[in-house]
Amino acid sequence: MNTSMESTVVALKEFLDEDQVSVNQTVRELHSKDESYHDASLPDVVVFPKTAADVSKIMNVANNLQVPVVPFGRGSSLEGHVIPYENGITIDFSLMDKILEVREKDLLVKVQPGVTRTQLNKELKKYGLFFSVDPGADATLGGMAATNASGTTTVKYGVMRDQVRDLEVVLADGTIIHTGNLAAKSASGFHLNGLFVGSEGTLGCFTELTLKVYGIPEFTTAARAVFPTVKNAVEAVTSILQAGIPIARVELVDESSIRQVNKFSGTDYADKPTLFLEFDGNEAGLKQDVEFTKEIMQDHNCEEIQFETDNTARTKLWDARHNLAYAYIHGHVGKKMMVTDVCVPISELADAVIFARKELDAIDLPGGILGHVGDGNFHALLMIDISNPEELAKAETFNEKIVLYALERNGTCTGEHGVGVGKQKYQVAEHGEALQVMEKIKLALDPNNILNPNKIVQIEKMDK
Amino acid sequence: MNTSMESTVVALKEFLDEDQVSVNQTVRELHSKDESYHDASLPDVVVFPKTAADVSKIMNVANNLQVPVVPFGRGSSLEGHVIPYENGITIDFSLMDKILEVREKDLLVKVQPGVTRTQLNKELKKYGLFFSVDPGADATLGGMAATNASGTTTVKYGVMRDQVRDLEVVLADGTIIHTGNLAAKSASGFHLNGLFVGSEGTLGCFTELTLKVYGIPEFTTAARAVFPTVKNAVEAVTSILQAGIPIARVELVDESSIRQVNKFSGTDYADKPTLFLEFDGNEAGLKQDVEFTKEIMQDHNCEEIQFETDNTARTKLWDARHNLAYAYIHGHVGKKMMVTDVCVPISELADAVIFARKELDAIDLPGGILGHVGDGNFHALLMIDISNPEELAKAETFNEKIVLYALERNGTCTGEHGVGVGKQKYQVAEHGEALQVMEKIKLALDPNNILNPNKIVQIEKMDK
Repeated sequence: MNTSMESTVVALKEFLDEDQVSVNQTVRELHSKDESYHDASLPDVVVFPKTAADVSKIMNVANNLQVPVVPFGRGSSLEGHVIPYENGITIDFSLMDKILEVREKDLLVKVQPGVTRTQLNKELKKYGLFFSVDPGADATLGGMAATNASGTTTVKYGVMRDQVRDLEVVLADGTIIHTGNLAAKSASGFHLNGLFVGSEGTLGCFTELTLKVYGIPEFTTAARAVFPTVKNAVEAVTSILQAGIPIARVELVDESSIRQVNKFSGTDYADKPTLFLEFDGNEAGLKQDVEFTKEIMQDHNCEEIQFETDNTARTKLWDARHNLAYAYIHGHVGKKMMVTDVCVPISELADAVIFARKELDAIDLPGGILGHVGDGNFHALLMIDISNPEELAKAETFNEKIVLYALERNGTCTGEHGVGVGKQKYQVAEHGEALQVMEKIKLALDPNNILNPNKIVQIEKMDK
Repeated sequence: MNTSMESTVVALKEFLDEDQVSVNQTVRELHSKDESYHDASLPDVVVFPKTAADVSKIMNVANNLQVPVVPFGRGSSLEGHVIPYENGITIDFSLMDKILEVREKDLLVKVQPGVTRTQLNKELKKYGLFFSVDPGADATLGGMAATNASGTTTVKYGVMRDQVRDLEVVLADGTIIHTGNLAAKSASGFHLNGLFVGSEGTLGCFTELTLKVYGIPEFTTAARAVFPTVKNAVEAVTSILQAGIPIARVELVDESSIRQVNKFSGTDYADKPTLFLEFDGNEAGLKQDVEFTKEIMQDHNCEEIQFETDNTARTKLWDARHNLAYAYIHGHVGKKMMVTDVCVPISELADAVIFARKELDAIDLPGGILGHVGDGNFHALLMIDISNPEELAKAETFNEKIVLYALERNGTCTGEHGVGVGKQKYQVAEHGEALQVMEKIKLALDPNNILNPNKIVQIEKMDK
């Protein structure tokens, strides 16, 4: 540790307890990586604040000494968001993990940033409520807001940004602001909620979140539908959406992935493009929706369709989808997973998935395709040996092809995983001159570029 | 016109046709006011661009000469948004009124900013689609995006910001950017869509909008429900929302307003707090929802409930609600309407409406209360003689009391009308230090403060 970092640690210990400031090697290593294939990098020091006031003081120290700061939830990001490539201070929010208030009548909940989504849903169940956003990992809500996470329920309930009513944010200079209020809508001032959600720790640290929650639906039905081709499956979904059927979840799993799941879970599903669906609502409405859905599916050459309403059977059916990533990881010990994440206009989705499959076959690396097809978002999961530069390069080239294909069709390089470091090289191609607007905002709010520096936007390094 | 404005007009005429640049007194007067009670102020010159390139060149001229610019749709704003208090150039978008593309499969439409919402819905009907946001006026979509408009369908379909997938924006220096893409979700970069929507012309001019549209629902039912008290009516709505019944519209009309409507329309509705409701969806689901809704209403002392499914009868029933503003204006010739616009957490709504009614009775000005109760947003409509300073002062004091009541309960000073000049004095109270973040963003993107200056944020006047 250099002298400058030593004085940082001294300054931090002036207001934090001994056990809230760690320079321990193991602790630093735990905060040096995320769940991605991106290279690790150590923070100099890890701090564990308990209050917004703590965070404010930490930011004061960092800003005065121009030390980089990375906010850290659970480290489940997939594009290197929390990896401190400039070292400095990592703020771990695990001690700020309280559910502060459930406002039943307002369908709102107030939480600290370290609360995880399963922790929240366990509490909400007591009230007959649930929180909708479900990324694969049991991420913290602070982290999910920072990356604008989404998941399988987005087609009905929206992304993380749609759930955030208010954030308490500590800015680069330690100022504490609120970005919203508790009203269901507002036309007052610039939309700071939306700006801070998805800012990946580059504009401020979240110390409190007020989130929308929903009543647990009266009735839920799950389905599995098998199609001869990806095109048929995707077009069936397009027709369902155009018909205005309020589908709660719809996931595409391609034939390779079904094979992987069968091997992992001992199921014997037909290894063909398969949709996993879920509908929720009232019983009578759902029955009518299900009948209509069946008709639409048959129009698109559906070969087999299975509905389950019973809770256990539904869970079993969806297990295949949920276990997909594990099935690949388990089947390829020693390899790391790279996941592509483009989102395209729905009308372009079928062709995009077919393109991705063809390219995936061509590079001859194990992998499959999985899509949140209601949103036009799909992932290619690739198993790679990151110590093998050739494999890594092949995977990177594949990822790039998928991204450029999406951008040419007015899509986005990342539907839900975020930019981090992995998607930074596509920001100019995607945003054009709008990227300069983002840079101006970043510099206006964080002139010393200390907040998760060089994630999303690349700012010229300051002289220190 | 001073010399500086003369040279501005000369510069504008270098690339705009004779009929695209007007200094005509009548044209300037048409652009000196909106539909509110706020004082008028003349622009020096009104321009009518036909393309984004025109707008870019106009902004170049304005930025070089440091002349204020106000974008103008239809002038239907309610808080003085389009009134050019600093004079300068008003950009009227009426010549940019083309529907550019209907992407049926993507449920998207691309329009120019001067297209109005009824013009769009007329076109969409051919495709079995509709655009959901319905403010009272037949506003332009550019204007609706600029103010983050909403209306009666927000409880189900969301506000204007929720519909905007992409904007083409001309910035203060003439740069043209896109704020989004055509994918249903994205985690790439800062959320510029959200930032520009609701920026009221202070950050840029919109020259193209890509908006979400919806399939026209299979089945629609309307209802009118009469309650003994406002509290009963609002609590019935809270229970319906908590039960997860997907209500498409729910409006509260108070007893005074029902009396005004009866007088205007010749109806004989009971002059008691009344809910106007609409449900849409599939027929079987709707029937179950309607039965459940009736039960809930009865639990809250509903005295009378009338359902209509036939199109004509539904329209007739909703006429009472739609004609409300006209009923007041028609009944008070020579007076102007002031409309309050707070939004509070749903749990605070009943008390807030009761408070507003009590205060309204106390000032003894004619008026009534109307609420988008599904969102916690309500309006008090007051008829005032703006030439009478005492009446105006009474109305202003009333408005302030309502605003402060809402802010104390973590609500907002404006649910849907926007800040303009009318709500600027409450921005510090509502946003606290977050207002400085807005100021920093404004200055970073418009350093000369030429874009609708001193709306939303107050920037120190530049030396010219």
